[in-house]
Amino acid sequence: MGERKIIQKYFSDVGSAYLAEQGIRVSVGDDAAIISNPPVGDDAAIISNPHDKESVVSIDTSIEGIHFLSSMKAKDIAYRSVAVALSDLAACGATPAWYTLALSMESYDEDWLKEFSEGLRIWLKEFSEGLRIVSDEFRLPLVGGDTTKGALSISVQVTGYSDPGKAITRKGSSKGDLVFVSGFIGEAARELKSLREGEENKNENLAYLRPKARIDLGQRLIGIASAAIDVSDGLIQDLGHICRASNLGCKILLENIPTKLSRPLTANEINQGDDYEICFSADESNLEEISSISEELGIKITAIGRMTEGNLVKVVNKEGLEVKIKPGFEHF
Amino acid sequence: MGERKIIQKYFSDVGSAYLAEQGIRVSVGDDAAIISNPPVGDDAAIISNPHDKESVVSIDTSIEGIHFLSSMKAKDIAYRSVAVALSDLAACGATPAWYTLALSMESYDEDWLKEFSEGLRIWLKEFSEGLRIVSDEFRLPLVGGDTTKGALSISVQVTGYSDPGKAITRKGSSKGDLVFVSGFIGEAARELKSLREGEENKNENLAYLRPKARIDLGQRLIGIASAAIDVSDGLIQDLGHICRASNLGCKILLENIPTKLSRPLTANEINQGDDYEICFSADESNLEEISSISEELGIKITAIGRMTEGNLVKVVNKEGLEVKIKPGFEHF
Repeated sequence: MGERKIIQKYFSDVGSAYLAEQGIRVSVGDDAAIISNPPVGDDAAIISNPHDKESVVSIDTSIEGIHFLSSMKAKDIAYRSVAVALSDLAACGATPAWYTLALSMESYDEDWLKEFSEGLRIWLKEFSEGLRIVSDEFRLPLVGGDTTKGALSISVQVTGYSDPGKAITRKGSSKGDLVFVSGFIGEAARELKSLREGEENKNENLAYLRPKARIDLGQRLIGIASAAIDVSDGLIQDLGHICRASNLGCKILLENIPTKLSRPLTANEINQGDDYEICFSADESNLEEISSISEELGIKITAIGRMTEGNLVKVVNKEGLEVKIKPGFEHF
Repeated sequence: MGERKIIQKYFSDVGSAYLAEQGIRVSVGDDAAIISNPPVGDDAAIISNPHDKESVVSIDTSIEGIHFLSSMKAKDIAYRSVAVALSDLAACGATPAWYTLALSMESYDEDWLKEFSEGLRIWLKEFSEGLRIVSDEFRLPLVGGDTTKGALSISVQVTGYSDPGKAITRKGSSKGDLVFVSGFIGEAARELKSLREGEENKNENLAYLRPKARIDLGQRLIGIASAAIDVSDGLIQDLGHICRASNLGCKILLENIPTKLSRPLTANEINQGDDYEICFSADESNLEEISSISEELGIKITAIGRMTEGNLVKVVNKEGLEVKIKPGFEHF
């Protein structure tokens, strides 16, 4: 089975129900996908005419042993690979529109050139099932892909839209802005630890296996958040990006960092990454609105600190003493 | 040196001279690139307003040992990785607008977490230089990227535009259409062979190291070509895609296939792939126009056969006997 057949069989219909509403007329299987920007006056259901929108684009690579465990099911690998790319769009407040996929796989069989192995067949079927789940969740068609032989690696590029000038970036915080984070921190790291130890996964939220891209929240934060980032490498590390971009520092209260545990998180637990929550800054005057967004979406949003002068992310405990933080996830 | 610094240092300014003309206001370094679709009335130099265009998107992964040789210079690897993705856009007749990059690299040093090795530094510098060359050639900004640790692998997604309904696809050939191919076939394979044997590269065209994406030609073929594909996996194999998509067969004359050698190509030599030329079908009435396009662009274009009924690509020699063709490059 060659590339064409693999793409045809496993990927050509992923999210294809949403092609029309994205104005896409040629998709997976041709040299390139062709995406009509719907003509003026076309009132497509979800995506407004991109001609009065900005495109927001993110690409993320997930690699076996680094971004996911070898032991994970193909379905979860697929879901996670798309979700982490979507999470970048969420942080910008963008509405996802379509995605492309570059998939590298090793053969599962010495003879696979001659005979497409049963193992690979099952893996691909489950992988495409995972893509379908995330496609359905976000009404997101897969519009193109490339499959190659190599170490297992998945690159996903997601394109979305937002109103001109409205997308939230890492830059824009003001001194005195409150710092917020959605959801809970450290859940994904706890889940990953138990997965690594081969334990049965008892984390009902599947924070690691099925991270929730906070698309709804991001959209609601437009006009409210002065800067935002998704927490992928570690809360403190990612906050550092906002500080650098905004030329500020910030002060975070350790005990305020939201956790599902019955005790506060330790310094070691707050910067492990993989949370895919949204960390953002906003003027204090937005507190009430943020609280009603939280209620409406059913997503916990917690104020954890404040933007300050300087250029450091300082974490202090309730005694007011600075806490030393380990570096988060380094890509290298 | 972490990911942020790598991206900042080596990639943040690749093709940045062309950001403005593509209406891009946030680029490499934020979570996502933000691309303004220029407002109506904006007369950007090269790219017309995307709102009355279709987007054409292609993603291609290049992997060490499969799509390029380990011995190749980083500059050539970079150039080639972008060029092969652009080649898909060329086959569609699209005008490239911007690209994203997902780069996986192994460390060159056991200690590289502590100390960014000199070897990696040089490699990255040369790699980004290769990106710059292709960015400059096609006025193409790099708008986003992801770097991860892993086996050397480069995924490039290129987005371009074309007039609505005008992009050329693999589908659309009619019975009786002539089949054409640009340039020469087999040059890249000969170059690859000599590179593999460690010979000094004497191929002046650098057909393998620096494949030419036939963007100009593709654009000129709009309204002329009934179907087109870029020759990546092998002329005969890629022609098979046009046949399948158009529900036709075709008959190719072996001796007509253009070569720089002083003798006709053999059956083994015509389907080796990596040519990145454009193979297209067109009604015979376009012969004169195709010939003047060829002259104008200085690109050889050769009629090599004709679309027929059936569903097979038949290659015949000058005695009229069918020639057996080896399969081209299989991605798996």
